[in-house]
Amino acid sequence: MKLIDALNWRYAAKRMNGEKVPQEKIDNILEATRLSASSMGLQPYTILVIENEEVKKKLQPAAYNQPQITESSHLLVFAAWENVTEEHVDEYINSIAKVRNVALESLAPFRASLMNIVNGRTQEQKYEWAARQAYIAFGTAITAAAVEEIDATPMEGFQPAAVDEILGLKEKGLRSVTILALGYRDAEKDFLVNAKKVRREADKLILKVA
Amino acid sequence: MKLIDALNWRYAAKRMNGEKVPQEKIDNILEATRLSASSMGLQPYTILVIENEEVKKKLQPAAYNQPQITESSHLLVFAAWENVTEEHVDEYINSIAKVRNVALESLAPFRASLMNIVNGRTQEQKYEWAARQAYIAFGTAITAAAVEEIDATPMEGFQPAAVDEILGLKEKGLRSVTILALGYRDAEKDFLVNAKKVRREADKLILKVA
Repeated sequence: MKLIDALNWRYAAKRMNGEKVPQEKIDNILEATRLSASSMGLQPYTILVIENEEVKKKLQPAAYNQPQITESSHLLVFAAWENVTEEHVDEYINSIAKVRNVALESLAPFRASLMNIVNGRTQEQKYEWAARQAYIAFGTAITAAAVEEIDATPMEGFQPAAVDEILGLKEKGLRSVTILALGYRDAEKDFLVNAKKVRREADKLILKVA
Repeated sequence: MKLIDALNWRYAAKRMNGEKVPQEKIDNILEATRLSASSMGLQPYTILVIENEEVKKKLQPAAYNQPQITESSHLLVFAAWENVTEEHVDEYINSIAKVRNVALESLAPFRASLMNIVNGRTQEQKYEWAARQAYIAFGTAITAAAVEEIDATPMEGFQPAAVDEILGLKEKGLRSVTILALGYRDAEKDFLVNAKKVRREADKLILKVA
């Protein structure tokens, strides 16, 4: 679907019908998300993909029992790195050298600016920064799902510590930031299915600077 | 352009050629951005559009003299609300009632959950939340620009306080969060124009939960 049509079509489904989304569509959404922009290209987050019904059931109470958790086809949990370390930077720098076939030395100035972030900010500041980068990917995923005509419910309403515990994220150095439930709207049960989209009017949201 | 092709085509241009982007394309990018998802639909941010060359020149030192500031066609400054207030919520609730033609009373439970956020969080927490919502819109704008085949450089490298001062954002209750420079890559001057895209490998970025 064309982008603006897709964005008009989409909404945050409150009920889904449990139908499975074809793997090809999931793969397209994930690949678009993988291609997302992020500051300096670091992508300081991990995306957990959950299809397992038992895991979804465990997560549901941590998400205030919202029905989309179990009615969705797949859940994407966006989890930011709880710290950004020198090891992360070197892994990234090595990856650039390999993909672009350039010498590591040529990347020294870029590496230094990344190390400035690693060593010049507190862990909490780095986590907040990583979380914001995850939100860019989240925005891309929401958009990509709409283009694929897959319903997607962006969810902030959950207890991150509980979700981290269930998914073992702490051991992976991750903290859950947002969830995207992917599936199909349940047109009969969702009271919002025909609701008109409400967005801030262009002349209030967008200000032209003279 | 198709979404994944567009995301592969895009990169953060380091030099732009000053050519103007047609208004229709700018309008499409802004409309896609306006349609972005945001938590509870509130859209707690404002987007400043800057085409004026004098204003760009004033902003450039506040952005570490990055050339794209003046070589771009348009700058989009994403500015989050520095506070989220009861007035904001009521404006939004009134807007829902009007667009959907429903009674205000029917929105009371939804209004109450928004008021819980307004009254249950510190101003700084609300600002951080608003900034994250702005990042969803930022991700949508980056994606929309790529689909329109317009180059876009996402920029976090600027001094927010200086940008706020130049644009008079404080008086508007806003704080600048990110900038998106829109324009056309300068293929001769940009050393990154032919660089292969580096992204985390799918099996590292995306973890399937068994």
